[in-house]
Amino acid sequence: VLPDLGAPLPPADVYLLAVPDAAVAPVLAAVAWPAGALVAHLAGALPLSVFEAQPEVRGGVLYPLQTFSAGRAVAWAAVPLCVEAADAGALNMLLALARSLSADVRPLASADRLRLHVAAVFANNFTNHLLGVADALLAEAGLPAALLAPLVRETVDKALATGSPFAVQTGPAARRDAPTLGAHQAALAAHPAWLGIYNQLTASIQAQLPPVPGLAGA
Amino acid sequence: VLPDLGAPLPPADVYLLAVPDAAVAPVLAAVAWPAGALVAHLAGALPLSVFEAQPEVRGGVLYPLQTFSAGRAVAWAAVPLCVEAADAGALNMLLALARSLSADVRPLASADRLRLHVAAVFANNFTNHLLGVADALLAEAGLPAALLAPLVRETVDKALATGSPFAVQTGPAARRDAPTLGAHQAALAAHPAWLGIYNQLTASIQAQLPPVPGLAGA
Repeated sequence: VLPDLGAPLPPADVYLLAVPDAAVAPVLAAVAWPAGALVAHLAGALPLSVFEAQPEVRGGVLYPLQTFSAGRAVAWAAVPLCVEAADAGALNMLLALARSLSADVRPLASADRLRLHVAAVFANNFTNHLLGVADALLAEAGLPAALLAPLVRETVDKALATGSPFAVQTGPAARRDAPTLGAHQAALAAHPAWLGIYNQLTASIQAQLPPVPGLAGA
Repeated sequence: VLPDLGAPLPPADVYLLAVPDAAVAPVLAAVAWPAGALVAHLAGALPLSVFEAQPEVRGGVLYPLQTFSAGRAVAWAAVPLCVEAADAGALNMLLALARSLSADVRPLASADRLRLHVAAVFANNFTNHLLGVADALLAEAGLPAALLAPLVRETVDKALATGSPFAVQTGPAARRDAPTLGAHQAALAAHPAWLGIYNQLTASIQAQLPPVPGLAGA
């Protein structure tokens, strides 16, 4: 149930559409925007073209690359803000707004913003899910989730410090350690979906490895 | 090429086998152990039974739950050490050795140690690989890897702080945001292996979600 979106809006330099991705187009269409209003959405995966159906507004994007959760404060000054707009005046206005919030502001076109958003899903949503799987497997062994904290922190520190996570990959997949991979697969027999993830990520790690010396061209 | 493993060993309270998993059994068989020597391997996935072929030694395990890399110092006092041995005397000796290194020492039987090792692969090796995929996708958009650092750190901090990563899952999969998932899948068309990972992890995230209200039992 939406509030009365047809009511007149107070005047503003910028209107920020902080709504779920799927609500951006319906809300855009439902609001009685002042003519020429600068309206920006905050979505990583929505192109600037979402504004084309509303020619009465000047469209823009202000995408914060961070995960937000109730009860957790965010250090805005370090949050990368990606900005896009249909005209130069709107872009400058959004850049100024972004720079008042963060030290890391960059213009970014829709297609590259989508690539960044996909990358963020791998680095954020999928990493969180893997930590959940690890936590569930620990619980089956009666072990506390906190046991993994030093390992996870060192892995993330190392990957971010080197700037090249593929180059610092460790583990049985990277070692081509077939007996250990087999023992792990057997240990996951009760969890076929997680076994599928195990096999797919193992194959993807091995696809990134340099060729085995002596097998080049074979 | 191995050194002369058949040469007599100097006497020691404990011999630690810091060799790759696949080398533990061959090295165990090749060394001329003093009768009754206490020998411990450091592998997460190798059972204590690997010592059964060498009845002349007392077998044990000292498994450090951490990732090690050349040039990176490890804070040993915070590294969980999992200990196992075939007899009580050997276990007490290994526990004392472990406690001299770390504040987090626990006895752990082979089957649970294997579960812990699998969990560590999800939390460590697979997370590192996902960060590598994210880094590669950023590079395609001409964006620096460092852009993801605040996001990754917040995600890991949140997952570890809550102790329940599944409960704090965010993103388009968790939101059941079909248009965004479709846009991401299209953006990954040039990378079929990573698209496969995307689809499998998306399905696994959605399998963890609570049922949609109103669809229960449908």
